[in-house]
Amino acid sequence: MRESQPIITLLTDFGQADAFVGIMKGVILSIVPHAQLVNLSHLIPPQDIKQAAFILMTAVPFFPEGTVHLVVVDPGVGSARRPIAVETPRARFVAPDNGVLSYALALIENYRIVELTNPQYRLPEVSSTFHGRDIFSPAAAHLASGVPLKDFGPTVDKPVLLDPPRLRVEGDHLEAEVLNVDHFGNLRTSIHTLTWEDDTTLSLQPIFEINTERSPAVRFSAESAHISVGRLKIEGISTTFSAVQPGQPLAYIGSEGGLEIAINQGNAAREFGVKPGDPVLLYF
Amino acid sequence: MRESQPIITLLTDFGQADAFVGIMKGVILSIVPHAQLVNLSHLIPPQDIKQAAFILMTAVPFFPEGTVHLVVVDPGVGSARRPIAVETPRARFVAPDNGVLSYALALIENYRIVELTNPQYRLPEVSSTFHGRDIFSPAAAHLASGVPLKDFGPTVDKPVLLDPPRLRVEGDHLEAEVLNVDHFGNLRTSIHTLTWEDDTTLSLQPIFEINTERSPAVRFSAESAHISVGRLKIEGISTTFSAVQPGQPLAYIGSEGGLEIAINQGNAAREFGVKPGDPVLLYF
Amino acid sequence: MRESQPIITLLTDFGQADAFVGIMKGVILSIVPHAQLVNLSHLIPPQDIKQAAFILMTAVPFFPEGTVHLVVVDPGVGSARRPIAVETPRARFVAPDNGVLSYALALIENYRIVELTNPQYRLPEVSSTFHGRDIFSPAAAHLASGVPLKDFGPTVDKPVLLDPPRLRVEGDHLEAEVLNVDHFGNLRTSIHTLTWEDDTTLSLQPIFEINTERSPAVRFSAESAHISVGRLKIEGISTTFSAVQPGQPLAYIGSEGGLEIAINQGNAAREFGVKPGDPVLLYF
Repeated sequence: MRESQPIITLLTDFGQADAFVGIMKGVILSIVPHAQLVNLSHLIPPQDIKQAAFILMTAVPFFPEGTVHLVVVDPGVGSARRPIAVETPRARFVAPDNGVLSYALALIENYRIVELTNPQYRLPEVSSTFHGRDIFSPAAAHLASGVPLKDFGPTVDKPVLLDPPRLRVEGDHLEAEVLNVDHFGNLRTSIHTLTWEDDTTLSLQPIFEINTERSPAVRFSAESAHISVGRLKIEGISTTFSAVQPGQPLAYIGSEGGLEIAINQGNAAREFGVKPGDPVLLYF
Repeated sequence: MRESQPIITLLTDFGQADAFVGIMKGVILSIVPHAQLVNLSHLIPPQDIKQAAFILMTAVPFFPEGTVHLVVVDPGVGSARRPIAVETPRARFVAPDNGVLSYALALIENYRIVELTNPQYRLPEVSSTFHGRDIFSPAAAHLASGVPLKDFGPTVDKPVLLDPPRLRVEGDHLEAEVLNVDHFGNLRTSIHTLTWEDDTTLSLQPIFEINTERSPAVRFSAESAHISVGRLKIEGISTTFSAVQPGQPLAYIGSEGGLEIAINQGNAAREFGVKPGDPVLLYF
Repeated sequence: MRESQPIITLLTDFGQADAFVGIMKGVILSIVPHAQLVNLSHLIPPQDIKQAAFILMTAVPFFPEGTVHLVVVDPGVGSARRPIAVETPRARFVAPDNGVLSYALALIENYRIVELTNPQYRLPEVSSTFHGRDIFSPAAAHLASGVPLKDFGPTVDKPVLLDPPRLRVEGDHLEAEVLNVDHFGNLRTSIHTLTWEDDTTLSLQPIFEINTERSPAVRFSAESAHISVGRLKIEGISTTFSAVQPGQPLAYIGSEGGLEIAINQGNAAREFGVKPGDPVLLYF
């Protein structure tokens, strides 16, 4: 089935008021009429590569193999930054080479990257301001329809990579950061991944390389952990929202395995004035 | 055609900035690659079951028979509330058992409900915070692709039901409420359904059981009706927006058959500070 | 492929919180189950026909031939304004006859227009407030599925047309207007189309009829042009955003060929308080 109806997701900072996203879909459907097009988000804050990188990372594992993820958060449009396509055993990507794929690629063993130079897979005229339409959408569509990766252009050896999210073991605590604030005001942190070893003990299996090599493995009791972010202090890590009353704050393991902080049926970010990048401390 | 391209609608309070909805679609397409996915809304106010119930009710009649409506407004995620699937002659539903289907089901003669317990139709790992991804999306996809209802789990006899929207006959008037404020600021009330008996006379045929059994049938002249909501008073019920000048308020029969109140080319809710739940009186 | 999976785009002022757009899609899929449905925008400011006309114009060239564009920005719903369908060699349209197609049609050589009167291609009951659901969606679906244009109703000879966007040659300058402010706060003007004659010279090839017939052809040096909008003054027209530092304003040729004004990685509209309709002067 996949051959005839390939999946292409779209992730941009284009907003929803203009037709920019619709136009990209028009370009894609002109090339691969039966594509399944899925919006991941178009409300990434303008030019916020790191937010897009995080959102993409959360989505990739839940799409079928071979899905093409088209990401256009592109502050360098029209400059010398390269447009790239990436093929992995899990998924394929088309994006500017500005680090926006970093977090998603960190979860995947091996990949091949090419620069999108072949004019055959671009629109006939390329503007200097809308490569989403003129370069990235045609590339995603041709890739989805079966054009081999190598036909798009030369291999890229050193893609631009973001620094990994902040996460350090410092004696009796973890130093981390708020990676993202979701629609509900829940704080999604870089303490990632936490897994339950048994009913009371959590262990940290970091996604990105951190300084745990020099530290003992991080294992701790969920009940005795202390978390602080801004002026918010929480004792213990819960298993569900309903562990606390509506209106009360809690820490818990989110649906991607990272530590999250929320107010049950409330908005933690708004109530406590927290934003992405704010420091998080977990004393274990 | 339906077998090969089943329709699944999505209605959530997940917002549009995160990839939550996209991820649910990834899960669905992994199971039923040719699904037609249609967003109803993802801007239900967080945890507002009643708003979701109303929005769903307005949409169901306009989709083909057999459409699967996937609804995730789920303040009790992770608690003991049951996940359910419902089959009716008109449509199918997958949702938490928290009343969110109440209004849609009130329009449908008979239905069968099961609890979603079969692990075969869930993701292998079920988080405690994102059942939309781990339980509801796989169930909707499997249901759409032909898995019989009974295979999902045991029958549910008494689903959770919301109280019907407020609507009472009190002597010379109806006591009702604002059910929803739409994007234009139009007030959609619980006075539902009103139908024209002739060019000047309206009759009320309530969707939900109200106390009309003990009252004479409610029939009245459109011209002489008086409506009040907050400090807004309107005389008469119009047939179209253009019955009044731009900027003027009017009452009219909305596109679902309920009484609505608007300002022609203006925003009634904003101008008069009205919100869902506010009382509406109609003197006939 | 097109026969089996026709493309229908949707452009409305319905917002995204209600199910209005979802309901239109339900109606369409009831008639043409395999349609490819693409949102252009549903965030047109309420009743703003001119903004919708502009957004539509930017999108049409990037969709395959035969695409049906369904546009519902309809302040006159329920009044005597006609519902119409339009067929052109490039695209097809379904909309109220209120000028919303004017700009898109200005780019297309010839077209045929009919009024949507045939009750066979409407829903059985037509409300007075939601023709998007009851008249326009069924018409778009039937048109997309192959019903000939003439079957919908009688020919319309004189459709309602908007005035063309303001653009006049006055001695040493152009008088124009801000047509649209995009999601990034970039100002999209009516100075349209500008093309590079060589590396330093621009020429104006107006889309709409303007008073250039009586003027010499407008050709000028990109470097020496002066642009003013509100209190913002810009010297020279750049080729890319990266021609200026982040935070600095620039003028450039946008992706549709029109003059645009932006702050690199900033929001020009917000910073300078500019809105659609504001005058733009270009001294050449």
